[in-house]
Amino acid sequence: MAHRVVVVGAGFAGLQLVQNLKGSGCDITLIDQRNHHLFQPLLYQVATTLLATSEIAWPIRRLMRPRKDVTTLLATVDGVDRETREVLLRDGTRVPYDTLVLATGARHAYFGRDEWEADAPGLKTLEDATTIRRRLLLAFERAELTTDPAEREALLTFAIIGAGPTGVELAGIIAELAHRILPREFRRIDTDRARIMLIEAGPRILPAFSPNLSDYAAQSLQKVGVEVLTGKPVTQISDKGIVLGDEPIAARTVIWAAGVQASRAKDWLGGVEADRAGRVMVQPDLTLAGAPDIFVLGDTAHVESDGKPVPGVAPAAKQQGEYAAKLIRTRLEGKDAPAPFKYKHMGNLATIGRNSAVIEFGKFQMRGWLAWWIWGFAHIYFLIGTRSRIVVLLSWLWIFISGQNSARLITQKETLKDDV
Amino acid sequence: MAHRVVVVGAGFAGLQLVQNLKGSGCDITLIDQRNHHLFQPLLYQVATTLLATSEIAWPIRRLMRPRKDVTTLLATVDGVDRETREVLLRDGTRVPYDTLVLATGARHAYFGRDEWEADAPGLKTLEDATTIRRRLLLAFERAELTTDPAEREALLTFAIIGAGPTGVELAGIIAELAHRILPREFRRIDTDRARIMLIEAGPRILPAFSPNLSDYAAQSLQKVGVEVLTGKPVTQISDKGIVLGDEPIAARTVIWAAGVQASRAKDWLGGVEADRAGRVMVQPDLTLAGAPDIFVLGDTAHVESDGKPVPGVAPAAKQQGEYAAKLIRTRLEGKDAPAPFKYKHMGNLATIGRNSAVIEFGKFQMRGWLAWWIWGFAHIYFLIGTRSRIVVLLSWLWIFISGQNSARLITQKETLKDDV
Repeated sequence: MAHRVVVVGAGFAGLQLVQNLKGSGCDITLIDQRNHHLFQPLLYQVATTLLATSEIAWPIRRLMRPRKDVTTLLATVDGVDRETREVLLRDGTRVPYDTLVLATGARHAYFGRDEWEADAPGLKTLEDATTIRRRLLLAFERAELTTDPAEREALLTFAIIGAGPTGVELAGIIAELAHRILPREFRRIDTDRARIMLIEAGPRILPAFSPNLSDYAAQSLQKVGVEVLTGKPVTQISDKGIVLGDEPIAARTVIWAAGVQASRAKDWLGGVEADRAGRVMVQPDLTLAGAPDIFVLGDTAHVESDGKPVPGVAPAAKQQGEYAAKLIRTRLEGKDAPAPFKYKHMGNLATIGRNSAVIEFGKFQMRGWLAWWIWGFAHIYFLIGTRSRIVVLLSWLWIFISGQNSARLITQKETLKDDV
Repeated sequence: MAHRVVVVGAGFAGLQLVQNLKGSGCDITLIDQRNHHLFQPLLYQVATTLLATSEIAWPIRRLMRPRKDVTTLLATVDGVDRETREVLLRDGTRVPYDTLVLATGARHAYFGRDEWEADAPGLKTLEDATTIRRRLLLAFERAELTTDPAEREALLTFAIIGAGPTGVELAGIIAELAHRILPREFRRIDTDRARIMLIEAGPRILPAFSPNLSDYAAQSLQKVGVEVLTGKPVTQISDKGIVLGDEPIAARTVIWAAGVQASRAKDWLGGVEADRAGRVMVQPDLTLAGAPDIFVLGDTAHVESDGKPVPGVAPAAKQQGEYAAKLIRTRLEGKDAPAPFKYKHMGNLATIGRNSAVIEFGKFQMRGWLAWWIWGFAHIYFLIGTRSRIVVLLSWLWIFISGQNSARLITQKETLKDDV
């Protein structure tokens, strides 16, 4: 019987692993609770109306169409039975494995203040992105309707908490939306007066970059109209707004980009070691201590390389998927195991608005519009399939030429109920 | 002070009216409870994964950007005060008018069996389309998961109720999805064995067409694997399936395409005459009897032309919008009113699957693949803006060349909760 590999999670790590097991003769089952693989690096563009949902997500089943060795299941995993070597699905089904790969990603986390989530949504799934998009657009719509000046001001105040790449990218696009795209469309309000605040508890934005690039990014954001507030911890969030240190600020739209927490894989495994963010501690070969048949990859795992934890970014997840596939193959072929996993850093990138970016590869730095285009082409290259590449390129060119964002639909059902 | 025109509903009638009032000097307020205008004739393609939501919907506010004379409000209307001439919004705001235009469209209706809606959704809004798409795709996913043969058969049985153009179009695409697109993607089930039933209580499908075209359409549908059942009334619908006459049929996916009911405009006006479908009876000039300042247009109105009721189709709505704009202009200019509204029938069209259609203009008939392309180009012509035309054409060409439908995301939040 073929060696059964069960992969939970069709993100960057899981898909890369499945791809690299092609022709290995394994019988692969790929389980995800969504029907689509999501290109998370561009998710902020869906949240801010630059791209449509369909442009950065692909049905997993279609990606696996040519792979007769892969069975795709849309299902929710509730646990792992390590004794019988089975994955437990919510509907009671058990899926037996010889090798198990857990790569279920991360969610945003609120440092113990989970009650903040309702008022400060984070950005990890397609639904998160359409929720943020809906709130952004509804804030302007309600500001146009209201006759109360204080309410109008609160509706036109946007707070983004956390100034890593996601926070910086969201703030830049929201500022351009408010100050450049929308003003000519509203008759009663001046969207140019909208206040966009990027709030960071630490001393500077983009802490993973060199200080001079952080400074450049902060200045660029200020130029497009973002208030950059560093060294300011948010102490409270409610439906009225936020409290910054002691100062309450009325803001109807708050977005959380400050922290992540690994998915529940730790709980499925039972009694395994994890770090503070809930990431499962793994061996240098990405398997669980004492369980060489279980791999944990990507944002779900705490992996060290050169004595430092590997960051939760797409290239790291892909490299881990590659490594695990290689290890499984060598085992099946009875060869020596490869050397421990080693992360190869591909550099840091972040965009600022629609025509500037900062890039850092080791000592090489780049900033400005050329960096944006390099960033853009790099991302188009990593999209899956010709059609997606054409469609995203077309969307960006259209925005570039027409100056208009095209994906501005409010579609969720809650729209009507929330509607004033 | 400028003449105040308040338009409720940004569908085909409302938008056409606003467009034809350009330069009239009126102060126009356009109110809709959605932020987008929807191209309903292609909605079935979103429901069946051919097109993405963003391809057939446009933010109303952006369409109105160049029109400084138009204020767009995203708001829910709760009534009309005919005494004070004000529209009442749900948030308590009142919007005064000199001329009021109600063009709020229609919803699907269940002939007094409203409890059927939960199990047999209809297709009128973008949310309806994504709901149907989600149910379609989840039925196949669950069939792949289940180990119960009876449950699997029920999951692979699809019943479309009502065989007007929408029912015919849905059935054709669903059959192609099940029999041509999906089989190579599933490993445990044979989607080719899915049963797609098109059920019509009347004696033939497409009753608005000539009998020979109805026959042609029925044969074409049977060729792509649709069971066409005419003269069969559905007597019960539940989460288990339907009852056809006396025969219960287990079907997990039921779609309603059998009847429509006008929107609530009748209730807002209070004590006005309406037909059985809730459409407000209007004068030959499309105004309310005794209230020349109130127009009711499109699917919301019962209009007669040449002694026959005008059908609820997009060209009829546009013609009514044109007429009302002309009448408002002549009044403001103090000229004679135009002759009563006369509907110019533009013909009947319906597509069958992805490469056949039937067209009828008076005595002219056409059918087959050329009819499909004529239908396709006609629809692309009527889309709004260059970008949409390019994008939809690209999507269709892609499907034509690759044989794959691209818009197969399951995105609503309910997905996870419903998930088995």
